[in-house]
Amino acid sequence: MTQKRVGIVGANGYSGRELCGLLARHSYANLVVLASRQYAGKTVAEVLPRLAKVSRVENLSFVTPSISALLDSGVEIAFLALPHGLAAEFALPLLEAGIKVIDLSADFRLKNVDTYQKFYGKEHPAPHLLSEAVYGLPEFEWNRERLRSARLVACPGCYPTSILLPLIPLFLNGVLQPTDLCIASASGISGAGRRPEVSLLFGECDESFRAYGIPQHRHVPEIEEQLSYAVHRDVSVSFVPHLIPAYRGIHTTIFGVPQENVDAIQVRQIWEKTYSKSPFVRINDVLPDIKNVSMTNFCDLATCSDLRNGKLLIFSAIDNLVKGAAGQAIQCFNLMNGFIETEGLLS
Amino acid sequence: MTQKRVGIVGANGYSGRELCGLLARHSYANLVVLASRQYAGKTVAEVLPRLAKVSRVENLSFVTPSISALLDSGVEIAFLALPHGLAAEFALPLLEAGIKVIDLSADFRLKNVDTYQKFYGKEHPAPHLLSEAVYGLPEFEWNRERLRSARLVACPGCYPTSILLPLIPLFLNGVLQPTDLCIASASGISGAGRRPEVSLLFGECDESFRAYGIPQHRHVPEIEEQLSYAVHRDVSVSFVPHLIPAYRGIHTTIFGVPQENVDAIQVRQIWEKTYSKSPFVRINDVLPDIKNVSMTNFCDLATCSDLRNGKLLIFSAIDNLVKGAAGQAIQCFNLMNGFIETEGLLS
Amino acid sequence: MTQKRVGIVGANGYSGRELCGLLARHSYANLVVLASRQYAGKTVAEVLPRLAKVSRVENLSFVTPSISALLDSGVEIAFLALPHGLAAEFALPLLEAGIKVIDLSADFRLKNVDTYQKFYGKEHPAPHLLSEAVYGLPEFEWNRERLRSARLVACPGCYPTSILLPLIPLFLNGVLQPTDLCIASASGISGAGRRPEVSLLFGECDESFRAYGIPQHRHVPEIEEQLSYAVHRDVSVSFVPHLIPAYRGIHTTIFGVPQENVDAIQVRQIWEKTYSKSPFVRINDVLPDIKNVSMTNFCDLATCSDLRNGKLLIFSAIDNLVKGAAGQAIQCFNLMNGFIETEGLLS
Amino acid sequence: MTQKRVGIVGANGYSGRELCGLLARHSYANLVVLASRQYAGKTVAEVLPRLAKVSRVENLSFVTPSISALLDSGVEIAFLALPHGLAAEFALPLLEAGIKVIDLSADFRLKNVDTYQKFYGKEHPAPHLLSEAVYGLPEFEWNRERLRSARLVACPGCYPTSILLPLIPLFLNGVLQPTDLCIASASGISGAGRRPEVSLLFGECDESFRAYGIPQHRHVPEIEEQLSYAVHRDVSVSFVPHLIPAYRGIHTTIFGVPQENVDAIQVRQIWEKTYSKSPFVRINDVLPDIKNVSMTNFCDLATCSDLRNGKLLIFSAIDNLVKGAAGQAIQCFNLMNGFIETEGLLS
Repeated sequence: MTQKRVGIVGANGYSGRELCGLLARHSYANLVVLASRQYAGKTVAEVLPRLAKVSRVENLSFVTPSISALLDSGVEIAFLALPHGLAAEFALPLLEAGIKVIDLSADFRLKNVDTYQKFYGKEHPAPHLLSEAVYGLPEFEWNRERLRSARLVACPGCYPTSILLPLIPLFLNGVLQPTDLCIASASGISGAGRRPEVSLLFGECDESFRAYGIPQHRHVPEIEEQLSYAVHRDVSVSFVPHLIPAYRGIHTTIFGVPQENVDAIQVRQIWEKTYSKSPFVRINDVLPDIKNVSMTNFCDLATCSDLRNGKLLIFSAIDNLVKGAAGQAIQCFNLMNGFIETEGLLS
Repeated sequence: MTQKRVGIVGANGYSGRELCGLLARHSYANLVVLASRQYAGKTVAEVLPRLAKVSRVENLSFVTPSISALLDSGVEIAFLALPHGLAAEFALPLLEAGIKVIDLSADFRLKNVDTYQKFYGKEHPAPHLLSEAVYGLPEFEWNRERLRSARLVACPGCYPTSILLPLIPLFLNGVLQPTDLCIASASGISGAGRRPEVSLLFGECDESFRAYGIPQHRHVPEIEEQLSYAVHRDVSVSFVPHLIPAYRGIHTTIFGVPQENVDAIQVRQIWEKTYSKSPFVRINDVLPDIKNVSMTNFCDLATCSDLRNGKLLIFSAIDNLVKGAAGQAIQCFNLMNGFIETEGLLS
Repeated sequence: MTQKRVGIVGANGYSGRELCGLLARHSYANLVVLASRQYAGKTVAEVLPRLAKVSRVENLSFVTPSISALLDSGVEIAFLALPHGLAAEFALPLLEAGIKVIDLSADFRLKNVDTYQKFYGKEHPAPHLLSEAVYGLPEFEWNRERLRSARLVACPGCYPTSILLPLIPLFLNGVLQPTDLCIASASGISGAGRRPEVSLLFGECDESFRAYGIPQHRHVPEIEEQLSYAVHRDVSVSFVPHLIPAYRGIHTTIFGVPQENVDAIQVRQIWEKTYSKSPFVRINDVLPDIKNVSMTNFCDLATCSDLRNGKLLIFSAIDNLVKGAAGQAIQCFNLMNGFIETEGLLS
Repeated sequence: MTQKRVGIVGANGYSGRELCGLLARHSYANLVVLASRQYAGKTVAEVLPRLAKVSRVENLSFVTPSISALLDSGVEIAFLALPHGLAAEFALPLLEAGIKVIDLSADFRLKNVDTYQKFYGKEHPAPHLLSEAVYGLPEFEWNRERLRSARLVACPGCYPTSILLPLIPLFLNGVLQPTDLCIASASGISGAGRRPEVSLLFGECDESFRAYGIPQHRHVPEIEEQLSYAVHRDVSVSFVPHLIPAYRGIHTTIFGVPQENVDAIQVRQIWEKTYSKSPFVRINDVLPDIKNVSMTNFCDLATCSDLRNGKLLIFSAIDNLVKGAAGQAIQCFNLMNGFIETEGLLS
């Protein structure tokens, strides 16, 4: 198995740093370029002291992000950990130069450019690429197959990952009604990004718990678009995200309405069948806890009937920075290159 | 205004300790007896170093809980911070001896003894007292009036407090459908009690978030019973509690279905009218955060329409140990004695 | 007792907010003006949702800081919670206008202008005021007496408060050698201020512990100057501050060398005698914990001999925002006005 | 390279669980037996949900600890994560049966049985093994060489590891005086063990910081014994441990007295030379932070002169559960078996 020459553009956010740590230890990723305006000229060990001595790349220096720097590096696959809008600006020339792109931003997640404009406040910078972009949730066969030959991957958002993994199999198997979905998610503070804002200071987040971004968080259209593919009709969800005083993790609680005579046992069986060969989805007896998935690429699932209310309660937990971002991107990278799906993700 | 001689039975749990701290500074509470098997013989300052020098009672010694010790102390009103079952055993002889009882346990919250037996696994120890017990949620007129002359107060559970305060006015004003309520609450770890259990260790709770107690947490029948009084029919709620890696606080997110043409503005107006004279309910523009209510007796409320889904999103935050336990008990104490409702609770 | 008209300049930092919360509930403080460039035009309740409904001043609006705005308000005493340098610029005209000043910045803590210039990187803006400024550590008689008639108070730094309270009595009583002092302090993150910096984000501070600011943190000259007054010779200390993943609190551990035949019992006796009438210093059997002093104006002290090493181990804990800042400022305010020293600080 | 058959005795504490997670992914460790009284009959996945699907051993069942169960398993090397006293009871028969032992308890760390009895309150259960036990700090040549052929390894305590790694090279090179060492360490709560005690509850440790175990924590004699070997005379240290509100990590701050004309640059050079081939010791420009070493086997070091006080300030950080326990045990295991020293520890 030969190594691939890879690069990361935008490595100063939490997702970019996580990518850097994971790729630096990946057996078949040869990290040849790291681009970050803020860190240009500094080495990995200086910027990410965690990686000193652990990584083959500790002495690699960051460069200023530019297409020419990326081309000069001989990179074959570029991971983009950039703000939305900027990601698409990089993706276009990279693809034209024959470099594959795995994008962790929101730029290629939505097929609908109007929705993009509405939620991200700008015209989509590269609408013609949307049809080509493959949604990077490899647990579903239609994505997995396309990923093997993808040039451009749109990695899912963290909340969508935690919601789609439990729901899509239930829709595909017709056991859950595609209406009246109430979703309460809670994310560690890293989900809000590594921006110098007062609201993200330790002093504001410690011993705190609050909802935010309602009633239409930016991840809602992504969730609904993906669910609608599974159920072949429009799906609308009521989604409330919250912030937890913890660094990592997303926990999702879903109140759904099961089809008649459907109980938790059947739901569990459907998940077990769907995910029998998925290395990263675990169906649990105990309720998912972000503690059990932190620093892993796993998604833990559990369910329980609330018969008195005719509800099905569904729970999931992921690490927002791994399965919700960098880890899932590497899972896609593995599939694109014919590597074992778990390479670099189980240690 | 003359002081009342008060006592606390069971002061080694988090609610009992909180009560101790609040009563020790209350202008009209003369704390004459503190009973705790575990701490018998020790002084307040030894057991609760936070209260040394701050409290008039720092040198008061704990006694072994017994009816005779309480009678000997000349106590007029006893706060019971005991496990369920045990609380009722103390309440009965105290009431017979003419001592008023403010009970923080679950023993007198439910009117239905069968429900009690089902959820608490034992026969109710004093069913004849249930009709007399006044539910200690003073924000509602029917409780407030009865509290003024109550002999026995059943302080509400912490989750119910956070749920009933936003919902009851909406039911009374007919703006929310009494069906299809999905409630996701999250509590600080103190809500699980001060028991030496591995699952409550710092190492198990730190950087953790998980649901528990589903599908029928013990607080569900209390919530449903109180809601049914407001709407004059049975109400059933789908309730999922979670644990937050923080010490104090409960945050509740409710997905409800508004009656036709009802929006968030009307909901807010109803709350403002209902609570115009309530010193501890605040209606906010910003979403409630447990950080803003910790160590206070406030309940913060906010709401938002999710029009696409025909939902009304409702948010509340309280301190589970204050408004959800000790503070609310003192609010009842104030009303029972004709003190200002906020006495001892605003500083 | 008549109320004093007070104001706060600079209320968007953690100390300023704490001051606002404490003064709003102080029986004899009439908060007539709140100045903050950032919050000008907003009300207290908007900026500090914790204070809504609890405070007589919830509807008071912030104004842009200016001397004229302060004069117009009729303020009699101004609390300055401003960055160093700026505080002195406000202090001068206020004093000239007959307004007393309680300054929480570093501007008037050091008597030596050269040291100020060295540590704060600018010429002292008002050196002629230094001799008049009274050091606001009221536990010592020489400060307490001068505070009663002070026009300008320099509130001590948070680390110095935690260090001077245990050490000064030992120096005054000649039981500790004024050499070879090794001090390891640890502060909650709020001590680093409420600035939008990446290093203060939740994601950077959570599950973290690190030293910083060595070998000469800005508080070192203040500590040494004050210690030298007690021992009538120059004192030098080796001081290492650390950051704790908690919001509030300073814990200090001091390794000192006792004079011959001095043990922990004598040290404790000296503290008990020195602080017999000090309402906020507590001498403990158990080791101080920031948890026991958080949100209080107390300083907890304990000591232990390390006979094998000829060391005396000294421990203290305070809340950096209360006894280390806003609470101590109010303690000074109480003394300046003949109020009970604990007014507004024990509830 | 052939795999070794390994077992863990005592897997319900934090160190045992960490060992389990690390060994389950070690390329040359074949985990054949897991013994835990508490978990007997349960599988790894049930007890440690983090390890489900990640580990080759997820379906391995725990057995009741007994010599016969260990012998039956065909184990070649046993890791003991047992309380002191009990560990020695297991070590003896295992060694007699030809099974090598890597002990994480304190039982074989001290050469002096009287010190053991004084600090651990019982007679040493197997004093004749003490001379054979190799101290498992492989960074020093005298240990490393003996480890290659060791039958019995005494893994160092967590605090000693964080203290000996910076100090021993300085003593060996004669740049630090072997007197007057003041050491302030701070440990995450996991260091206190996974025992159901009220003092270790989340509610008691969150937002807390306190010293404990003074003046003679059990790790003091181990520290002093090891230091004395380096300097060929008795060494005594003044040591104060503290608890940090975080799960993992130890941070150590040492105030030492350098020999004349020794500065931080020389200290750094000595460390760099000593540790040039040590894969797990990193010498930093920035001050060590437990965040940078958590979940790794690294020890980060830094130093700074405090010239005014004639002190050398020394800082280290490790993960108490990895380099301070399970990781270091595996590092020893690798050396004993001729595996690459970093095997299983860099991912």
